[in-house]
Amino acid sequence: MKIRIGIFGYGNLGRGIESAIRQNSDMELVAVFTRRDPSTVKISTEGVEVAHADDVLNYKDKIDVMILCGGSATDLPVQTPELAKNFTVVDSFDTHAKIPEHFENVDKASKEAGKVSMISVGWDPGMFSLNRLYAGCILPEGQDYTFWGKGVSQGHSDAIRRIDGVLDGKQYTIPIDSALEAVRSGAEPTLTTREKHTRECFVVAEEGADLERIEREIKEMPNYFADYDTTVHFISMEELKRDHSGIPHGGFVIRSGKTGLNKENTHVIEYSLKLDSNPEFTASVITAFARAAYKLEREGATGCKTVFDIPPAYLSAQSAEELRAHLL
Amino acid sequence: MKIRIGIFGYGNLGRGIESAIRQNSDMELVAVFTRRDPSTVKISTEGVEVAHADDVLNYKDKIDVMILCGGSATDLPVQTPELAKNFTVVDSFDTHAKIPEHFENVDKASKEAGKVSMISVGWDPGMFSLNRLYAGCILPEGQDYTFWGKGVSQGHSDAIRRIDGVLDGKQYTIPIDSALEAVRSGAEPTLTTREKHTRECFVVAEEGADLERIEREIKEMPNYFADYDTTVHFISMEELKRDHSGIPHGGFVIRSGKTGLNKENTHVIEYSLKLDSNPEFTASVITAFARAAYKLEREGATGCKTVFDIPPAYLSAQSAEELRAHLL
Repeated sequence: MKIRIGIFGYGNLGRGIESAIRQNSDMELVAVFTRRDPSTVKISTEGVEVAHADDVLNYKDKIDVMILCGGSATDLPVQTPELAKNFTVVDSFDTHAKIPEHFENVDKASKEAGKVSMISVGWDPGMFSLNRLYAGCILPEGQDYTFWGKGVSQGHSDAIRRIDGVLDGKQYTIPIDSALEAVRSGAEPTLTTREKHTRECFVVAEEGADLERIEREIKEMPNYFADYDTTVHFISMEELKRDHSGIPHGGFVIRSGKTGLNKENTHVIEYSLKLDSNPEFTASVITAFARAAYKLEREGATGCKTVFDIPPAYLSAQSAEELRAHLL
Repeated sequence: MKIRIGIFGYGNLGRGIESAIRQNSDMELVAVFTRRDPSTVKISTEGVEVAHADDVLNYKDKIDVMILCGGSATDLPVQTPELAKNFTVVDSFDTHAKIPEHFENVDKASKEAGKVSMISVGWDPGMFSLNRLYAGCILPEGQDYTFWGKGVSQGHSDAIRRIDGVLDGKQYTIPIDSALEAVRSGAEPTLTTREKHTRECFVVAEEGADLERIEREIKEMPNYFADYDTTVHFISMEELKRDHSGIPHGGFVIRSGKTGLNKENTHVIEYSLKLDSNPEFTASVITAFARAAYKLEREGATGCKTVFDIPPAYLSAQSAEELRAHLL
C-alpha cells in the first residue's frame, strides 16, 4: 500500500514533487490539481489525472497527503487552511514574518478536521531552521550566521524586470568569502548586510534604452539592492537564455560558540547546501516530510506541525531497527 | 523548577557535562558519582556532592536525568541497563556495531521501570548520524561520505603507547583535501580507506630505543595504521605536552545526490564540525538531549530512544511558539 500523493499547483515546485515521488518507492502520485484548464496541462507521469482545483473534494478519499505548490504571497495563506479542512496537507510557506499567523490558521483547520498538517517545509525555512535549532541548543553561548547563495533570487530578479526598459533579467545572491572565513574562524564577527553578500545582475535591456539609468535604478532600489554592493551586466537575450536559465541556489548556516569552565574552547558547526535546482531540492525535502505527516496521522496525531516537531526517523521509509543498525 | 542532573563517572566527559550544565539555566547539577574514593575527587561546582557509585540508589528521587560518562568498551554495556532500572539515563555509547544489542538491553530495563533512556548521544554517533539520516531521506539516490578530523583519536593514541619503547604518543586523523573536494563536486567517487584519511603520529620514545623499529611497528599495525599513509614524528616529552595536550576533533558528513526526471541535477549537502575539545562538545550535545529525555518522560513516554526519535524542538528550553517565531 503506497502513500497516495496529490499535487496542488503545477509550476516548478509541483514538477519537482512529481519527479521526487519517482525516487521514493513507497509513494505514488494520484492527481495533479490546477486552476488552469486541465486539458492544457501536460504532466510527465503517465496514467495520472490532471484535475481542476475546484474538483479537489472529489479526491478526498483517494489522497493520503496533499502537497501544496503555490506561492507564499497570496496562494498558500488561503489554500493551506482551506485544504486542511479535508486533507493531510504539506506546504512550503516561506514568508518568515507571517509564519505564526499562518500556523494558527492551518492548525485550527487541521484540528477541527482531526488531521495533520505541516507548514514551511523546504530548506529555508526548513533544513536551515533545523540546523539553527540543533546548533543553538548544543552551543547555547554562541552566534548564528546564515548566508545564502550562490543562487538565483526570484524576488530580486522580478524587481529588475519591473524597471522601465528591461526585457528580462536574473539576479544572483553571492556570499562574501572573507565573511564566511571570519565566521568559520570562531571570531563571532559583527557583519553588516553589505559585508555578508553581494548581488550580481544580468540584464537584457530594450534596444536604445538608457543603460546608465537602468543600472542606477537597480543599484539604488531600496530593500532590494541599496544596502549591497551590486554589479550589473547588460547581456543579450540569447546569452541570458544560454547561461542563466538554471535555478541554482544554496547557502550556509554556521554557528560558533564557546564551552569550558572559562569559555576557553571554541567550536564551529557548519551546514551547507549546493543545489543545481532550488525547486527540485525543496520538493525533495517536502516529499520526505510528507512521509512523516502520513505516519503521524496514522498514529492519531492532529494539528499543524513544523520541521521542529518531527522525529527524524519519521522521514525515512526504513524501520527504526534498520536505522539504528545502519545509520546511527 | 530546574532539571536535576546527575553525572555518573567523572573523567573528561563528566567534566564537560559539569561545564555544559552551567550554560543551560534550566538545569542544575545535583551530584557526581564515582567509583573512586569520593573524598579524593575534586569537582568544579561548589556545593555539589560527590558520592560513591555504590550509593547511587539513595539519589533515586533527587535526580531527573542521570548522564553516564563511562567508556563504551566495558562501562556502559553494564552501567546503562543497570541504572535504567531506576533512573532516566542518557549515554554516549559509541561502538557502532554493538548499538542494536545495547539498545535492546537498555530498552528492556527502561520499559520495566516505566522510564525513558537515550543511548549513543554525541556527534558520531549522534549529530553525524542525524545528518546522514536527513540527507539520505531528502536525496534517496545519492552517496554518503563521512570524514573524521583533523583530530585526536584516543584509540590510535593508545595503540601507539602500547608499543615497546614508547613513553607517550598522540595520533591525529586527517581527512585528505583532494578526497573532500572530489566528494563536494558531486562526482560520487569511490574512495579507498587510504584515499580518505592520513594518520600523523607524535611519539615520545625511551632513550636509546630503536626508532626505526617503533616507526615500522606503527606503520604496519593492522586495522589501526596499515591501511593508511602514516607519518611518524619523534618528539620530546616537553614538546608533546606543549603542542599536543589538546583534544581537538571534528569531521564532515557529505551527501551528494541527483534529482530531476533525467537525474540531470546534482545537489550537495554538507555538515561539518570543527571542535577545540571533543569531550566538551560531546557533553554539550548530551546535555541538550538530556532536556529532551526529561520532557519525553514527563509526557509519559517509556523505553529507549536515540537521536532519530527526538523531535528537535524537545532539545530547546524555548517554547514551540518562540521557536516558530524566531528560528523557523
